[in-house]
Amino acid sequence: MMGYLFVMSAKMNSQQVTAQNNLDQSIEKSIDKILLQLTLEEKVAMCHAQSKFSTPGVPRLGIPEIWMSDGPHGVRGEINWDDWGYAGWTNDSITAFPALTCLAATFNPKLSKKYGVNVGEEARYRKKDVLLGPGVNIYRTPLNGRNFEYMGEDPYLSSKMVVPYIQGVQSNGVAACVKHYVLNNQEHWRDHINVEVSDRALHEIYLPAFKAAVQEGKVWSLMSAYNQYKGQYCSHNEKLNKILKEDWKFDGALITDWGATHNTKEAALYGLDIEMGTGTDGLTISTKNAYDYYYLANPFLELLKKGEIEESYLNDKVRRILRLMYRTTMNKNRQFGKANNQEHLDVAREIATEGIVLLKNENSFFPINDTKKITIAVIGENATRSMTIGGGSSELKAKNEISPLEGLKARYKNANIIHAMGYESGPSVYAKVLPATLNAEKLKKEAIEVASKADVVLFFGGLNKSHHQDCEGGDRQSYGLPFGQNELINEITNVNQNTSVILVSGNAVEMPWHNKVKAIMQTWYLGSEAGNAIADIISGDVNPSGKLPFSFPKKLEDNAAHSFGKISYPGDSINQIYKEGILVGYRWHDTKKIKPLFAFGEGLSYSTFKISEVKVNKKSFSKNDIIKVTCQVTNTGNYDGSEVVQIYVGKPKSKVNRALKELKGFQKVFINKGNSKNIEITIKSSDLAFYDESISDWNIENGNYVIHVGNASNNIVSKLKIEVE
Amino acid sequence: MMGYLFVMSAKMNSQQVTAQNNLDQSIEKSIDKILLQLTLEEKVAMCHAQSKFSTPGVPRLGIPEIWMSDGPHGVRGEINWDDWGYAGWTNDSITAFPALTCLAATFNPKLSKKYGVNVGEEARYRKKDVLLGPGVNIYRTPLNGRNFEYMGEDPYLSSKMVVPYIQGVQSNGVAACVKHYVLNNQEHWRDHINVEVSDRALHEIYLPAFKAAVQEGKVWSLMSAYNQYKGQYCSHNEKLNKILKEDWKFDGALITDWGATHNTKEAALYGLDIEMGTGTDGLTISTKNAYDYYYLANPFLELLKKGEIEESYLNDKVRRILRLMYRTTMNKNRQFGKANNQEHLDVAREIATEGIVLLKNENSFFPINDTKKITIAVIGENATRSMTIGGGSSELKAKNEISPLEGLKARYKNANIIHAMGYESGPSVYAKVLPATLNAEKLKKEAIEVASKADVVLFFGGLNKSHHQDCEGGDRQSYGLPFGQNELINEITNVNQNTSVILVSGNAVEMPWHNKVKAIMQTWYLGSEAGNAIADIISGDVNPSGKLPFSFPKKLEDNAAHSFGKISYPGDSINQIYKEGILVGYRWHDTKKIKPLFAFGEGLSYSTFKISEVKVNKKSFSKNDIIKVTCQVTNTGNYDGSEVVQIYVGKPKSKVNRALKELKGFQKVFINKGNSKNIEITIKSSDLAFYDESISDWNIENGNYVIHVGNASNNIVSKLKIEVE
Repeated sequence: MMGYLFVMSAKMNSQQVTAQNNLDQSIEKSIDKILLQLTLEEKVAMCHAQSKFSTPGVPRLGIPEIWMSDGPHGVRGEINWDDWGYAGWTNDSITAFPALTCLAATFNPKLSKKYGVNVGEEARYRKKDVLLGPGVNIYRTPLNGRNFEYMGEDPYLSSKMVVPYIQGVQSNGVAACVKHYVLNNQEHWRDHINVEVSDRALHEIYLPAFKAAVQEGKVWSLMSAYNQYKGQYCSHNEKLNKILKEDWKFDGALITDWGATHNTKEAALYGLDIEMGTGTDGLTISTKNAYDYYYLANPFLELLKKGEIEESYLNDKVRRILRLMYRTTMNKNRQFGKANNQEHLDVAREIATEGIVLLKNENSFFPINDTKKITIAVIGENATRSMTIGGGSSELKAKNEISPLEGLKARYKNANIIHAMGYESGPSVYAKVLPATLNAEKLKKEAIEVASKADVVLFFGGLNKSHHQDCEGGDRQSYGLPFGQNELINEITNVNQNTSVILVSGNAVEMPWHNKVKAIMQTWYLGSEAGNAIADIISGDVNPSGKLPFSFPKKLEDNAAHSFGKISYPGDSINQIYKEGILVGYRWHDTKKIKPLFAFGEGLSYSTFKISEVKVNKKSFSKNDIIKVTCQVTNTGNYDGSEVVQIYVGKPKSKVNRALKELKGFQKVFINKGNSKNIEITIKSSDLAFYDESISDWNIENGNYVIHVGNASNNIVSKLKIEVE
Repeated sequence: MMGYLFVMSAKMNSQQVTAQNNLDQSIEKSIDKILLQLTLEEKVAMCHAQSKFSTPGVPRLGIPEIWMSDGPHGVRGEINWDDWGYAGWTNDSITAFPALTCLAATFNPKLSKKYGVNVGEEARYRKKDVLLGPGVNIYRTPLNGRNFEYMGEDPYLSSKMVVPYIQGVQSNGVAACVKHYVLNNQEHWRDHINVEVSDRALHEIYLPAFKAAVQEGKVWSLMSAYNQYKGQYCSHNEKLNKILKEDWKFDGALITDWGATHNTKEAALYGLDIEMGTGTDGLTISTKNAYDYYYLANPFLELLKKGEIEESYLNDKVRRILRLMYRTTMNKNRQFGKANNQEHLDVAREIATEGIVLLKNENSFFPINDTKKITIAVIGENATRSMTIGGGSSELKAKNEISPLEGLKARYKNANIIHAMGYESGPSVYAKVLPATLNAEKLKKEAIEVASKADVVLFFGGLNKSHHQDCEGGDRQSYGLPFGQNELINEITNVNQNTSVILVSGNAVEMPWHNKVKAIMQTWYLGSEAGNAIADIISGDVNPSGKLPFSFPKKLEDNAAHSFGKISYPGDSINQIYKEGILVGYRWHDTKKIKPLFAFGEGLSYSTFKISEVKVNKKSFSKNDIIKVTCQVTNTGNYDGSEVVQIYVGKPKSKVNRALKELKGFQKVFINKGNSKNIEITIKSSDLAFYDESISDWNIENGNYVIHVGNASNNIVSKLKIEVE
């Protein structure tokens, strides 16, 4: 039946398409004309790669190629035509922006817009038409090697952050490519694992950010996930395609992840538009053009010629590809882009500082003043390690990258900074497990000696971008810190009580030492300006305002995905079942009353804030209503700074199982010390709907709802009851 | 003194520049603004390469890079970033257009326009901003390995043909880059030889095509020559720079040939704008960026910082580079280009057929009818050899190339075509001398056997694109045909009287067998459609109309450059003296009464033409006058076809030595058999001027001139006397 519906859609001409989607009529008419001129072979050629990162145009007619680049944190270095080696260009060093977990932690959609505009400018300058990002897969388990590229565990936060990023990128005439559609929530077995998930969890947790990307962000392309859903690969999945192109009316192009196509007929029928990265190994030796063997190349052409697939399917793909071209490479109004300017570095630094999350700060350990009296020990490999290298496809060739140690040295001109590596993990190597270092004992001894001489210790640890850390292609193998860091931190705290831990990671980690250290800071992968941003926060030049975009469970088993045995994570190698359903992240912790170590939305400031006079504009709302929540936020501390007011909504006595509360609104507000600001946050009644599996649609339940207002999911200062009828 | 003058020019602001050169005021004002924002380092960076074929923009400000590609016969395959290997792309197969000697032989400026438009479209589709061509160095000696890339021996013909080519290319928003300025008339010792030439020969013979390119073609860039002139390298030559930028008011960018820069201070002061291809070998190993060591990189920056070179010189270069950008990569109005379409192939074939020159056709040997009764022997390596591969920088990756044998087989469906290779020269290898083949005797025997069985023999010989043939980087080592062809032709004529020789070359060759063969055809390097074009002519589908753009001397010593010993060619390794002065090509043959084997402008048709009623509009002309020559051309033969009416002018009793006559006008006219057309050719009185060394300027001498009208330099049918006062 879906197939039939899709045929109808594929057969629509430009007028129907335009009427439906508010497309540019003149472009659709141009596409009509081009479609009449193209041969079957030319049309099929447009549906698959010609090299690692480009698809062919039609040279004969002057239709340009499409050039793509990995993102989402910057524009990747140039790759060879048909292998993964770097091409050795020297014009491809760029600005590394902070990882998307950091962007999410800012809880600041305006910064997301800036991020998009700026990274898009760099993509445009590098002559890329499609930037492969952002990623909005939901943070389901802290073991997922690729969480650092995504925007955390909450669908509402992801949705609010992804839309302006897309708008920013696309303002440059460069397509964003939101990825990975969908359920690519782990790297382990990503290439084949079949995900079983309830329709509710799919629609309430895993799809919303994609839906927002399509309907609010108006994104021009989407990237499919590697894994399977309902026994069908996501690149050509009947149900997912129906949701995307029929229900949401996505008018752009669905691009595979590299090598994620597996079946010609499915790809033809179920909405795949562009096939990329299918393995060409070996074929290049024996054939003229390995790309002809792509699923959407000669095998597709054959089925079309035999009449086994209607040409209307092909025409729909080509229409979408041409539309992508008109929006990007064929858009004469686009600017030329920019790269590596101070503005981009400033934006990278602004996002980095706003995203850093202060988790613990006993006795105002931070900020640390720059005085001659103080000796600061900077310990840990992550104080000096490049974090733009490694991590998989998001690896960057940063024009400059300030390490934490460099940043601190530049900021602290008076203090005595001493340094020890503490531990070492070896070079960043993709997809190789590294042997344990031989130097461990020596490095530890040096570090403890350095720590013992200092007034304060800044331990820079966490994960890195190597395989089995925060890296594409594999998951972490345990929740704890690697490379003997736990032991090292313990021993340091034995010689120096004034120890802080600054975590560089894109994932939560176990912190058995959290009571022994004075302060904990979560700093993410911050890109070019990492060290400067960290110094901004440590010095107090910038008051921290980041909030966790995902929960830090005390132990792995406290995480929902890890509460149901291996079938839930990582699966049995064939299937996995998301047994936790909708109870992902804080929804699980809240509902199951399992306290996390640090909660979603949590994050300290050097100041203190009071949320008061919390009000809702009325008691009772219709289903088409707008709920207006107002409150006053007062900066009651000694530093100017920002607070994020968060609004969660719960539905007691629901007819379905619900989370205790779900994020439905937030606002970041900057307030000078001693001052107050009144803010208003609006929520649509329709945002309170649940996905009703019995009707396969969203359903707004009547009755009472509780509005929770606070500055963290675990710090609700006010609850208000409302009614929806 | 020149230095001083140039400072004045370099210091001019946009208003002065605009007023002088009719530049786009809004662009000049934008450049003013950009210049104020650029750092010294950024400006210097723009003046030299960042890779083999690109120069950097200013990423910070969104100023794009400039990408160049070798031409002039098509867009070269993609090269690695910093070595000469091909990058292995598969989107860089293009249309190979005929070599420029062929274009010149068409005597058809309209075809030159088409050539430019079409090759420019391909460059644009390949995202190139500068196409490195056309070449207009004068054909001085048949040994020059690179003559095939140029437009023959006559400055007037070159001028008339180069202008529309430039206009065509540049209509795509792609800069033509006319090369090699100047006196690069041989490949031997090209990297250092110092050319001594009279001012008269320089201005009358070697410069006119460049001047026309600048003043009529409005070319946006020029490429300097490798050699020296007046002891100074042409890339930074005080006198040549003054001519180009002050006298001619060239407003574009002077780009070096690859590796042709030798001195920072000269490059800074004498008008070099962009330095390309300076050797980076070895430097890359020991330094971060070998390009920083370019003459116009760090060494230039140092001199600027020390104040040893005024910044105005740098600003002038950057203004020209930005102007080039605004005309190309920053021109938003340019189209997207096209490649490999039927139109381009049709144009390539049209030029190829119009350029083929029929030199001898005893007893109407050609055209050959396609009947079942005939057996045609196709003999010779050049019947099957690819001529788009090899030759140096003009090498192409042709999407398709029809060999003569393929073309004939496609055209002759009835005739019996038999084939033998005859001789072999080995693979096309650049800069390597190949050993003589071991198969010579066997191949010859086979060929003679094949020839003996045929009714007619088509011998496809000539040169090829290997080193010491028609190839950049070295000259031919003798005037005769290589690879034992002379002997082979002799032996073939012994067994078959009906033998024709079809020469594939870009140079004249010695033809000791010319009396023994029935027909001789000069076919050049014809590109993608070579075989089809040759079949068009051989079959009579197209009536030949090409005319020789250079003389074929009987023996090498009959050529002017070879009449004065080694100092004239190739020089003593340090210097060479152009002892023949202005008497290059037919000027020498005419004046010295040394009959060539085939003369400049010569070329047969399958039809015959009569030029009659030759008239000039008056007897006496002022120095600002227009001389109008009219005549009637009648097709007196049995084929529709084109004739080229050529007008030469001589000045008897001149106060300086003059050539007997010089080409001053031509017109190609198509006439149906039995019909006549009246044509008018105009000449400016000022075109009769000679370069007067006593006043360093052009001088129109009073007195009588003789107008020679004919269809070849050696077939003048009418002479008219006029007077200039």
